[in-house]
Amino acid sequence: MNQDTICAIATANGVGALGIIRLSGAEAVKIAQKTFKGTDLETVKSHTVHYGYIVDGKTQEARGEKQEAREKSKEDRPEMEEDEEFNIQNSKSKIQNSESSLTQHQTSNTTQELIDEVMVSVFRAPKTFTTEDVVEISFHGSPHIARKILEVLVKNGARLAKAGEFTMRAFMNGRIDLAQAESIADLIASENEASRKVALNQLKGGITNEISVLRNDLLNFTSLIELELDFAEEDVEFADRAAMNQLLLNLRQKLRALIESFQYGNAVKNGVEVAIIGKPNAGKSTLLNALLKEERAIVSEIAGTTRDTIEEVIHLKGTAFRFVDTAGLRETTDVIEKIGVTKAKEKIASAKVLLYLYDERDSTTQEVIAFVKEFYREDLKIVLVHNKVDLTNQETPNSFDATLNQELFPDFCDELLRISAKDQTGIEAVKTVLIDYVENLKDEESNVIITNQRHFDALQKSLQSVLQVEHAVSSGIHTELLAYELRNALEQLGEISGEFTNDEVLGNIFSKFCIGK
Amino acid sequence: MNQDTICAIATANGVGALGIIRLSGAEAVKIAQKTFKGTDLETVKSHTVHYGYIVDGKTQEARGEKQEAREKSKEDRPEMEEDEEFNIQNSKSKIQNSESSLTQHQTSNTTQELIDEVMVSVFRAPKTFTTEDVVEISFHGSPHIARKILEVLVKNGARLAKAGEFTMRAFMNGRIDLAQAESIADLIASENEASRKVALNQLKGGITNEISVLRNDLLNFTSLIELELDFAEEDVEFADRAAMNQLLLNLRQKLRALIESFQYGNAVKNGVEVAIIGKPNAGKSTLLNALLKEERAIVSEIAGTTRDTIEEVIHLKGTAFRFVDTAGLRETTDVIEKIGVTKAKEKIASAKVLLYLYDERDSTTQEVIAFVKEFYREDLKIVLVHNKVDLTNQETPNSFDATLNQELFPDFCDELLRISAKDQTGIEAVKTVLIDYVENLKDEESNVIITNQRHFDALQKSLQSVLQVEHAVSSGIHTELLAYELRNALEQLGEISGEFTNDEVLGNIFSKFCIGK
Repeated sequence: MNQDTICAIATANGVGALGIIRLSGAEAVKIAQKTFKGTDLETVKSHTVHYGYIVDGKTQEARGEKQEAREKSKEDRPEMEEDEEFNIQNSKSKIQNSESSLTQHQTSNTTQELIDEVMVSVFRAPKTFTTEDVVEISFHGSPHIARKILEVLVKNGARLAKAGEFTMRAFMNGRIDLAQAESIADLIASENEASRKVALNQLKGGITNEISVLRNDLLNFTSLIELELDFAEEDVEFADRAAMNQLLLNLRQKLRALIESFQYGNAVKNGVEVAIIGKPNAGKSTLLNALLKEERAIVSEIAGTTRDTIEEVIHLKGTAFRFVDTAGLRETTDVIEKIGVTKAKEKIASAKVLLYLYDERDSTTQEVIAFVKEFYREDLKIVLVHNKVDLTNQETPNSFDATLNQELFPDFCDELLRISAKDQTGIEAVKTVLIDYVENLKDEESNVIITNQRHFDALQKSLQSVLQVEHAVSSGIHTELLAYELRNALEQLGEISGEFTNDEVLGNIFSKFCIGK
Repeated sequence: MNQDTICAIATANGVGALGIIRLSGAEAVKIAQKTFKGTDLETVKSHTVHYGYIVDGKTQEARGEKQEAREKSKEDRPEMEEDEEFNIQNSKSKIQNSESSLTQHQTSNTTQELIDEVMVSVFRAPKTFTTEDVVEISFHGSPHIARKILEVLVKNGARLAKAGEFTMRAFMNGRIDLAQAESIADLIASENEASRKVALNQLKGGITNEISVLRNDLLNFTSLIELELDFAEEDVEFADRAAMNQLLLNLRQKLRALIESFQYGNAVKNGVEVAIIGKPNAGKSTLLNALLKEERAIVSEIAGTTRDTIEEVIHLKGTAFRFVDTAGLRETTDVIEKIGVTKAKEKIASAKVLLYLYDERDSTTQEVIAFVKEFYREDLKIVLVHNKVDLTNQETPNSFDATLNQELFPDFCDELLRISAKDQTGIEAVKTVLIDYVENLKDEESNVIITNQRHFDALQKSLQSVLQVEHAVSSGIHTELLAYELRNALEQLGEISGEFTNDEVLGNIFSKFCIGK
């Protein structure tokens, strides 16, 4: 258990009916007791809640007496009954003391100021969030009162927690691994169903379990190779190269699956960037407004002028679709007319889905085909959206669309929607395409989804190492290099759970947490 | 106990490490249990905390079985041991059920979705905030998760609480009186030490105790008068008129003291409005910036342009001084030059302190005297501030100030400060004047301070009634009127603690609370 005891506000900033201040560390209960007027917290059972007042400045003398009394009683107390008696004794000594302080000179350390009426929960190590003694103080949720209570706690020996320090302790003390710690931050930040579910699954140890299986496979393999190294001069092969190849193949596939899940995980966590693009008057704003309509009615009134990307997010089946920098894209379509597609490409570099909007009366198929081929990128889903079908009044695909289909499907795109943004027809189909895009990112094989860039990077490095090992095995040389690459891959995988992570990396991870977590 | 069970988020809006959702009502524990995967909450001791998961959709069948089992065990359970066995039985039936749901058709009401990992505190009636059964769910502080949990609670029979409904129940159920309920709102809203202390003192029953004494005095008196009414035809006097006069005098003084404490209470709660006024170039902005300097360094750079009154608050010894509409006042000083003081007067109508700034080189004593007499108001403290003393380099009061002193003291003002706002000399003296203004509002006789406009109004009405009674007594007539006025005063006093308050008034009071309190 850490010798220093940390404290912080755990609830959101601002005014609420109540707020929570959390303490963790060896002295948590002792420090809480120094600030608490009520039951003696040092004698209560774990996981119990107690009513009382937070006070500033318990009398030094009373505390001295109390400590003596406690040390004495600790030696031979048969629980409960004696505790109660002890409480009474203790409060008696307080009363005596406060009487004497009234009759004698009142010194600064004998005055006692009430700070707030509170409920205090006591959690005794090791069955707590940090595995240390933890105390939670539930106070009347004024930020001013929170500051006062923290002041008194610090005065009595606690120190203010750094960002993420409670979770860091939970990790350091072995209660959760690093991936779980990170999932707590994700859970707190979750803004929709999909991200909540993924984060909760990770918190329950999903990623770690999956990674552990991989690491154990790799470790067995490495042991055999290192055994070969020991007998290098004798040129023996302990590891069956065929079996090894199979193992490496399995590893590679599992790593690839996890890496690929990041695309979905990232969509879930950060949302999907969608660009709506087309010539001026193709109806881009109208489509955007139609999509946003249910999300936020007000947007339709201001969409033409707003540049606030936050305004332009729709949530479909728990995933956020961000029409990022759409204002910029609208501008850029003019630029396309004038100076070509270079700038537009830059603008949609981070987009995952491109809705290419055209008005048949104002376009040629050559134009659309050239445009799409120019914009084509392997990781960009391009959706052709034939707008203003109400004006041409054609209910079945016409020759215009047939040509596009023939020229572009399936190499450049595989969706062509016919809509009227103005009449709001076909909007549901656009939404379905967006939803399907995310659903298709899901790997049905794996129920573990990577959402964290750090995990993604470590997995990719692991994959590189595995590929190197495969190369080394197939070329039949460099057993040392092979062992080195294997160790490297093991370390990369260990970084996810925190087994091979240095303090700097840890500091960096936890510093992004909010204070109080 | 209310039959309907209410639920709401109790912590501040926004993202935090953790958030609290509170339930209160007869079904609180039952509903919580329906959403909780962990210990059986219906069997745990009060004031204990339990780890588990919030789940959506416990199986209907399992719940049915459980309820039967519970009803059976309720009849003859010897606590604890059987409870534990009961838990095991219960979880067994859950497992059986989930197995059967996997092998059979999976229907919608047998799927169970985990919402969040939580800690749940159970508080059994009557020793709770509302005196009802209360459950607090501590979850990972994402607003999205909060909404999900509330959804599930509502699905299982709770309803969303109205603003202030928890506190209203605490009042309705007799745990606190109305003044205490109001003090909880004040405590939550307290932004500084003075308002926190006053609110906490009120929460502890300060006002109510003081009022009770007054009401009892009044009630005794009223009984005697009503006794006289019963014997009206016999023209007897049960109440000694001299003793009554003494009692009324005491009452009047106590009411006056409470009413007068409102001036201080209001200053503490809402801050003190201060106006800085003077001719153009008298140094108003410079003085304001000098006062604000420690409070917020940035203000000095923008004070000339800002109209944001929030920027212009300083906290001195726990009291907020608001330089309200100072930007307007600065404008107005030009107006004064042009169209006189009428508009300026309007502007400072709500100010409690007026700092009148003058530059000796640019003023005449006649001018200052005329100005102060024009602005004079009984409830406005006018402070003369002789600015730019560095330029005239006179360390002792000169004839200019001596004239002002002679003409204005003590009828119109009693403070004359010599400062140099530019050199920051004399600024402390200005602050001291402001602090002393608030300190002088304190009534040393009374340790109870009224901060609530509603209480203030009721107390003033009570005082009016007492004055009427005094008049009735001294004129020796109208025993009926006297009794009527006494009853009236009793009711007014009863309104403060909520004894004589109607539902409309109550609804109005609690609707101003935040949700979850």
